[in-house]
Amino acid sequence: MPVNHQILLDNRPTGEAVASNFKLVTSETPALKDGEVLVRHHYLSLDPYMRGRMNESKSYTAPQPLGQVMLGGTVGEVIESRSSKFQPGDKVVGMGGWQQYSVVNAEQLGALRKVDTTHVPLSHYLGAVGMPGVTAWYGLVKIIEPKEGQTMVVSAATGAVGSAFAALAKARGCRTVGIAGGPEKCKYAVDELGFDACIDYKQYQDAASLSSALKEACPNGIDGYFENVGGMVLDAVLPRMNDFGRIALCGMIAGYDGRPMPMSYPALILTNRLKIQGFIVSEHMEVWPDALKELGTLVATGKLRPRETVAQGIEAAPEAFLGLLKGKNFGKQLVKLI
Amino acid sequence: MPVNHQILLDNRPTGEAVASNFKLVTSETPALKDGEVLVRHHYLSLDPYMRGRMNESKSYTAPQPLGQVMLGGTVGEVIESRSSKFQPGDKVVGMGGWQQYSVVNAEQLGALRKVDTTHVPLSHYLGAVGMPGVTAWYGLVKIIEPKEGQTMVVSAATGAVGSAFAALAKARGCRTVGIAGGPEKCKYAVDELGFDACIDYKQYQDAASLSSALKEACPNGIDGYFENVGGMVLDAVLPRMNDFGRIALCGMIAGYDGRPMPMSYPALILTNRLKIQGFIVSEHMEVWPDALKELGTLVATGKLRPRETVAQGIEAAPEAFLGLLKGKNFGKQLVKLI
Repeated sequence: MPVNHQILLDNRPTGEAVASNFKLVTSETPALKDGEVLVRHHYLSLDPYMRGRMNESKSYTAPQPLGQVMLGGTVGEVIESRSSKFQPGDKVVGMGGWQQYSVVNAEQLGALRKVDTTHVPLSHYLGAVGMPGVTAWYGLVKIIEPKEGQTMVVSAATGAVGSAFAALAKARGCRTVGIAGGPEKCKYAVDELGFDACIDYKQYQDAASLSSALKEACPNGIDGYFENVGGMVLDAVLPRMNDFGRIALCGMIAGYDGRPMPMSYPALILTNRLKIQGFIVSEHMEVWPDALKELGTLVATGKLRPRETVAQGIEAAPEAFLGLLKGKNFGKQLVKLI
Repeated sequence: MPVNHQILLDNRPTGEAVASNFKLVTSETPALKDGEVLVRHHYLSLDPYMRGRMNESKSYTAPQPLGQVMLGGTVGEVIESRSSKFQPGDKVVGMGGWQQYSVVNAEQLGALRKVDTTHVPLSHYLGAVGMPGVTAWYGLVKIIEPKEGQTMVVSAATGAVGSAFAALAKARGCRTVGIAGGPEKCKYAVDELGFDACIDYKQYQDAASLSSALKEACPNGIDGYFENVGGMVLDAVLPRMNDFGRIALCGMIAGYDGRPMPMSYPALILTNRLKIQGFIVSEHMEVWPDALKELGTLVATGKLRPRETVAQGIEAAPEAFLGLLKGKNFGKQLVKLI
């Protein structure tokens, strides 16, 4: 059996996550039992939610256990199968974790999904046509429920979720405004992702000045907001929300390190009759087929051309992940494992 | 025509509202035109939302204009009519304002509504079977959507909204827990209003200790919360919310004076996948008939026995209103005008 390099959670962060929280180990992949398949991972997905799981404290998922392989989405190829459902050579997406190979019980519903790489590159099944894309879809379609001509805003605009959000919102006839960090990302958001405008939050010292910039970029106010970061950005958006605006809350990167991150004026939820709703896309599996179909079509037709930042080799995963938390990636952060 | 004592908004509060913001004036009621009726007010309703309207700043309604009669709900009797729709002697509810009489265009849809006082005392049409009751109904039924056996919590528990909320939640088989100020109110909430438990927030120094008390009173967590006050109470409730909990946001008394009132841990909205929604009941007139029917039945059958605090005479309205904002009232705050 092939040798497998794995990254474990060795200890939990106190405050900011650091490289020494992780540990690289080597093992042999075990022999397959009936119903199992061996998958060689081509790409590992790195996502902000992983930071939440590194904490001991209550979150929406159980904490990542210490001493075990970090959980994570993977795409790869079946190289050995003792299941009638998969053949060697099948391209599959699953939750293989931070390692080069995984042994998967193929009989378990939803554990592994075959994908077609004719029109969609394999790696995109971890991004635009995967969990981040469906996340954008659910927040936009199910929580924000946009109407043609309304204004939609998303933070972390050039990330995997943000770029899918833009394509989905534009397809619904909405003015779409991004918030991102740095002029390069903002230029890319407008030139390549189809945003009508993008605001560089790093240009603004406080929520009030960022809010003024939003007012200019959203002359008709904001009807829907997809929140990926929290903190100052949320404070800046809230006063710009129109009556009956909807906020889908999916990420709070700014708060993962345990620093308090208050919402300064929650009374605006009342005065503007807003709806704010938090969600986790894995709890809404019923929407995945519809969402993936639309996202796949957007990619196949070139309307969604997601950017990727690719680190090379499993040993590069921790640093790439820490960079992601600081916004150093540009588009979907992946680790190439072959 | 009768002499009419009226209370105007004379100037806007800077910080806390004070008696000198108001001014008592005397005028004669004008002669009726075709289609108009003259109503003699029996009761004026005092409600927290009026404080928001006293500010210049943007709120969910236009600010109360300076130099004009304070807006407010009234019940009374038609004493003169030039409309075929109303006869002298009809008992009516409307928005007569802080004055003894009002002239109403009876042709305007919804301006005046005839009520039946056979089983429901007239004053209750300003409380349990009026706007506050419908407010509780909308928040509970339309936003919280309670299920039998779930736990519901309401702040300002013995107020007009809170007491109606309790009866409505109990009727749906929910554990119902109140938050109120002082042991007398808490005892009343449990003994008379049907709350399963009531917490005296004044016993707690901070959100953390209040939150611990809530944990004890809500051993299965909180599924629905009706927010009337904001501030520390909201901070205490948020960590106790169960996954997929719903918060109806209807009042933020704690924030009306313009003091900042942050929400300390909005990240909980995400980790617990909460929905928080602000609303104004006057924007949902479509639910009023259903809501009033249920509330009227609860009152007529003795399942909802709302308490009232009644100030005497129009000149007592300002002090009664300022007391309401400080929680000095016990139950629905009214001013008796006859």
